[in-house]
Amino acid sequence: MTAYDPNNIFAKILKGEIPSHKIYEDDHTYPFMDVMPMVDGHCLVIPKQGSRNILDADPAMLGHVMATVQKVARAAVKAFRAEGCQVRQYNEQAAGQTVFHLHFHILPLKTGETVKPHVGGMAEQAVLAKQAEMIRAVI
Amino acid sequence: MTAYDPNNIFAKILKGEIPSHKIYEDDHTYPFMDVMPMVDGHCLVIPKQGSRNILDADPAMLGHVMATVQKVARAAVKAFRAEGCQVRQYNEQAAGQTVFHLHFHILPLKTGETVKPHVGGMAEQAVLAKQAEMIRAVI
Repeated sequence: MTAYDPNNIFAKILKGEIPSHKIYEDDHTYPFMDVMPMVDGHCLVIPKQGSRNILDADPAMLGHVMATVQKVARAAVKAFRAEGCQVRQYNEQAAGQTVFHLHFHILPLKTGETVKPHVGGMAEQAVLAKQAEMIRAVI
Repeated sequence: MTAYDPNNIFAKILKGEIPSHKIYEDDHTYPFMDVMPMVDGHCLVIPKQGSRNILDADPAMLGHVMATVQKVARAAVKAFRAEGCQVRQYNEQAAGQTVFHLHFHILPLKTGETVKPHVGGMAEQAVLAKQAEMIRAVI
């Protein structure tokens, strides 16, 4: 497997070199809004520790990440009055991974709503800022 | 949220009341082949502890589950000569959950291969038995 590239876009977000709509953060993880949402309220959870994806991740760190995934999933469902959510995590290009820093997608869903391809347009920054605030309020 | 139903089909698999193509097991988790595969080599990882989904799961248990998800993901990619894999986890009916015992899907993928809907037919038992063996051999 290709080595972890510390200059990927999520590493730059962690270093504050690229802006993001942060939901909150703790010692190990950083959840924020996806700028190309597959559903309304699409969040990402990333570890602060660099790994390419789940295949090369430190298992102990995965535990921390999942605690945050659970926290954000509960809050996103509540904030968006969704009836459920999908958690997705893609490994390598063949599986749809486009940024090579481990990340978990959280997709709040209402009945009948479908997940759009991850190639739609950018969401409006003001909308994402508001959504991050909505989730933060109930976390 | 609806309470956990201890008579769901995965609970019955854990109790040995329904057969399954086991990959291996440890104190906390039980990975086995999905009988309605969305891709060739589709595995499931479930905790032995009962929870409906990620929304009501014990966070400490999630750590154990993810260690197994990582182990099975690595082995499934290797066994099926895949180039990557998706991990998916669905919460509540609106998000596509059909069995209400927490489970993670592991979907090994080759370039260009797509994930089929989870409503296809049953795979042949002999094929699933062979696939569980292939993964077990490299875990």
